[in-house]
Amino acid sequence: MSARPDPDAPTDAPQRPRAAVLSVGSELLLGDLTDTNATWLSRRLTEHGVEVVHHLAVGDDLDRLVAALRWLADGVELVVIGGGLGPTADDLTREAVAAAVGVELDHHPELEEDIAARFAAMGRRMPAQNARQARIPRGAVPLPPVGTAPGFHLVMDNPRRTRLAALPGVPWELHALFDAGVVPVLGELTGGGVTLTRILHVVGRGESDVAEGVEPLLEGVDGAEDAVLSFLAKGHEIQVRLTLSGPDRDAVLAASEPLVEQVRGALDGAVAGVDDEDLETVVLRLLRERGATLATAESATAGDIAARLGRVPGASATLAGGVVAYTARAKREALGLPASLLDEHGTVSEATARALARAVQQRFGVDHALAVTGVAGPSSLEGLPVGSCFWALAHPDGEVEVHGRRIPGDRRQVIARLGSAALDLLRIRLAAT
Amino acid sequence: MSARPDPDAPTDAPQRPRAAVLSVGSELLLGDLTDTNATWLSRRLTEHGVEVVHHLAVGDDLDRLVAALRWLADGVELVVIGGGLGPTADDLTREAVAAAVGVELDHHPELEEDIAARFAAMGRRMPAQNARQARIPRGAVPLPPVGTAPGFHLVMDNPRRTRLAALPGVPWELHALFDAGVVPVLGELTGGGVTLTRILHVVGRGESDVAEGVEPLLEGVDGAEDAVLSFLAKGHEIQVRLTLSGPDRDAVLAASEPLVEQVRGALDGAVAGVDDEDLETVVLRLLRERGATLATAESATAGDIAARLGRVPGASATLAGGVVAYTARAKREALGLPASLLDEHGTVSEATARALARAVQQRFGVDHALAVTGVAGPSSLEGLPVGSCFWALAHPDGEVEVHGRRIPGDRRQVIARLGSAALDLLRIRLAAT
Repeated sequence: MSARPDPDAPTDAPQRPRAAVLSVGSELLLGDLTDTNATWLSRRLTEHGVEVVHHLAVGDDLDRLVAALRWLADGVELVVIGGGLGPTADDLTREAVAAAVGVELDHHPELEEDIAARFAAMGRRMPAQNARQARIPRGAVPLPPVGTAPGFHLVMDNPRRTRLAALPGVPWELHALFDAGVVPVLGELTGGGVTLTRILHVVGRGESDVAEGVEPLLEGVDGAEDAVLSFLAKGHEIQVRLTLSGPDRDAVLAASEPLVEQVRGALDGAVAGVDDEDLETVVLRLLRERGATLATAESATAGDIAARLGRVPGASATLAGGVVAYTARAKREALGLPASLLDEHGTVSEATARALARAVQQRFGVDHALAVTGVAGPSSLEGLPVGSCFWALAHPDGEVEVHGRRIPGDRRQVIARLGSAALDLLRIRLAAT
Repeated sequence: MSARPDPDAPTDAPQRPRAAVLSVGSELLLGDLTDTNATWLSRRLTEHGVEVVHHLAVGDDLDRLVAALRWLADGVELVVIGGGLGPTADDLTREAVAAAVGVELDHHPELEEDIAARFAAMGRRMPAQNARQARIPRGAVPLPPVGTAPGFHLVMDNPRRTRLAALPGVPWELHALFDAGVVPVLGELTGGGVTLTRILHVVGRGESDVAEGVEPLLEGVDGAEDAVLSFLAKGHEIQVRLTLSGPDRDAVLAASEPLVEQVRGALDGAVAGVDDEDLETVVLRLLRERGATLATAESATAGDIAARLGRVPGASATLAGGVVAYTARAKREALGLPASLLDEHGTVSEATARALARAVQQRFGVDHALAVTGVAGPSSLEGLPVGSCFWALAHPDGEVEVHGRRIPGDRRQVIARLGSAALDLLRIRLAAT
C-alpha cells in the first residue's frame, strides 16, 4: 500500500480513541458549501474524549467513497460519515459502506414505515424513491429518522474493529442523530472522560511573538505536559488555545487554571479575555461593572469601532454612540474642531486625535471617549505613509492620553488593528481602576 | 495497498486535471475553526477547469501528513496544501512535503531576506525562529511571502507527476499566493484556455428565491448550456455565479454578457453590481460620478453602514461621515432630535428615522443622508419585536423617504441586512437620476 493515515500498528492501543469525519457531497468540492458539519462533529467528538485525526470530503462517486472509507478505517476506531443518505441516485453512502465492509444491503420494513410516517406528519405521501432510504448494510444498527433520512452504524471486521456511523448531511438531522445514536456508543470507545479547550484572546501581538513568549514558558510547568498548546490568528486577535483532558469538567477546569494564569502572566497584559470573552465583550463588561459610558470619534475606521461593540448584545447599556468624522469638514462641523488645529497639525496627528476624543466626550456627555485618526491607505496622506495612526482615550477627569505608531497591513487590516489598539487601551485602563 | 483515491490507472489521462486540497492544522480537527480555505480553493480551482476530488484536513503530525500527501498524490495531478508554514515547531508542512517527496530541505537566503524585510516594513526585527520559514524542499520553486510565510511548489517524481503547492493558512495570504504562484502553473495542467466566473451581487432576496427566479430562465438560452450556474449566500448578499470556459478571456466575456443581462433582468433591480462591484462599491461610484456627498445616522447598526463604505478605497471622496446615535440621549444631544418626538413616536419609528436623516444631512451639509433605527435583538424594545426596522433616505431637495419592515435573523444578521436595505435604497435612487 502507498500509505496509511496512522503509522502505528493496530495493536498499539491508543490512549484516546481516534476518529475521522467523512463528508459526502459534490457541492463541497465545487466550493459552493463550506463543511460546517465536520467542524460541529469535531467539537463534539473532542468534548467526548475522542481525538479527531482526519476530515475528508469526497464527492458523489462510489469508487472514491469506498476507497476513502477503507483508507480512513485503517487508522481510526470510529468514522462518522455525514451526507449521501438522501433518496436520489447520487446518494451513495449506503452502497459505499456496504461495499467497504463487504456485505449486502437489507431492506428494513420498519424503517420504511418510519419514513412514511415522517411524510404523513407533514401531510404528504412518501414518494416511491424514498423507499431506497430503508435499505442499510447487513448487520448495521438503524438510527430512525428525525427528518426523512435514517442513519445507521456498524462495526467493521478489521483489526481495529472500526465503527462506522452514517448520518444525514442536513445539519439539524446530523446533530440529532449524532446525539441520539452515536453519543451512546462513544462510552465503549473512550471509557468516559472530558476534553476542554481554554482560549486566551491576545490583542496587539503577532502570532510568532506570542508563540515565542508562551512555548518555552510551559516547559516543565506542572500539568503542562498533558496539555495541547496551539496558536490561531483569527479576525482581530491571536488565540492561544490549551486543550486538556480529564475525568470530568471540573477536574479539567481546575487543572487548566494555573496554565491559563501562567500564559496570561507571560503575555504581560496582552490577554484581553479568556474563553467566551473577546476584546469587545471584555470592554463592554468592564464599562458596565463601573457604571461607565463610552462614545467614539472615528476617522480612519469610519465607524468600525462602534460597530464592533454594537454587535455584542446589550452594548447600548454603555455605548452612547459616536461620530464618524471622515472628512476635515466633518471634523469641524460635527465635532467643532477648529480649522486652525487641522491646518497646523494635520488631520492625522496627535493633536487631532486628542481634540477628537475631548470633543466627542463633551458632545455625548460620556465618561470615556475613544478617538482614532490614521492613514488606512491605499495612498499616503498629507505626506504620511499608509498605516500611520493615532488613537486617544479621554478619561473621566478630562485627561486625554494619545498613542501612535505605524500599523502594518492593507486597508482592511489597518482599520481592524487600529480599532483593536484603541479598544485595548481602554480595556487596560479600565482593568486598572 | 488498501485503497487509492482514484481507481483510474494513471495512464488514463483525465479530461480535466484532478486536484486535492490538504488543510493542515490541529485547530480544524478540534472543531475550533471551519475550513473556509478548502471552500475558497475549490471554487478557484473549479473556475480554472480543475476537478477537485478530495478535501482532507490533518493535524500538526508529521507521520500523518506524510501519509496523507502520498495517498492524495496517488489520485490527482495537483495537491494544494494550506497551512503549516508558520515559524513554530508544530508547523510541519515543509518537513512533510520533503519527506513525502524524498528530498532534503534547503535554506534559501533570499527568502530569509524577504521575511526579514516584511518584518522591517512593520518596524520590527524578525524573530530568530522565523528563519525556519526560509527552508523549503530541494527542487521547489519558492513563492515569496505577502505576510511573513513564504510558500513553494514542486513536481513529484510519481507516475502522475503530481504537483504539490504549499500555501500559508492565513486566508488573505493563501489567496494572494494562490493567485500569484499557483494560477500561473494551472495552464500546464489544463492545456490552457480560460475559465471565468461572472458574479452578480444580489441584495435583499433569499437564496432559494433567487435560484427559483434564475434557473428556469436560463433553460434554452443560447450559450447557457455551457455555463455552470451556482448560488452563494455570502455576507450581506446572494451571489449568482456563472462559470464559462473558452479559448481566451475576450471570447468568454462576450459569451457571458447575454447571460448576465438575462439574469439581471429576471431579478428586477435586485442585482446591485457585477463582478468586482459589490453594493458598497457601486454606491460610492454612483455618488462619485454625480459629485454627491453622503452622511449616515445610525442607531441599530452602530456605525456598520459607514464602516462598510469606509473599507472601500477612496470612500472619503464622497462619505463625509456620520453619527452613531445609539441611545436616546445621543439622538437628542448629537443630532438635536426633540425629546418629544422620541417620546411620542418611539426610538424605533418612521418619524425617528425621518428626523435622523434630516438632522444628519443638515449637520454634515451633505447631498444625501441615510438613517436607520431598529430592534437588533436579542430582546424586544418598546414593545416592538426583534427585527423591527426603519431606514430613511434624505434627498438633496430635502425630501425624506422612509421604509420599514421586520427583518429576519439574529443580531448580527439584522444589523447586516438593515445596512444593506439602506444602502440599496440609495443605490436604486442614484441609478435612476
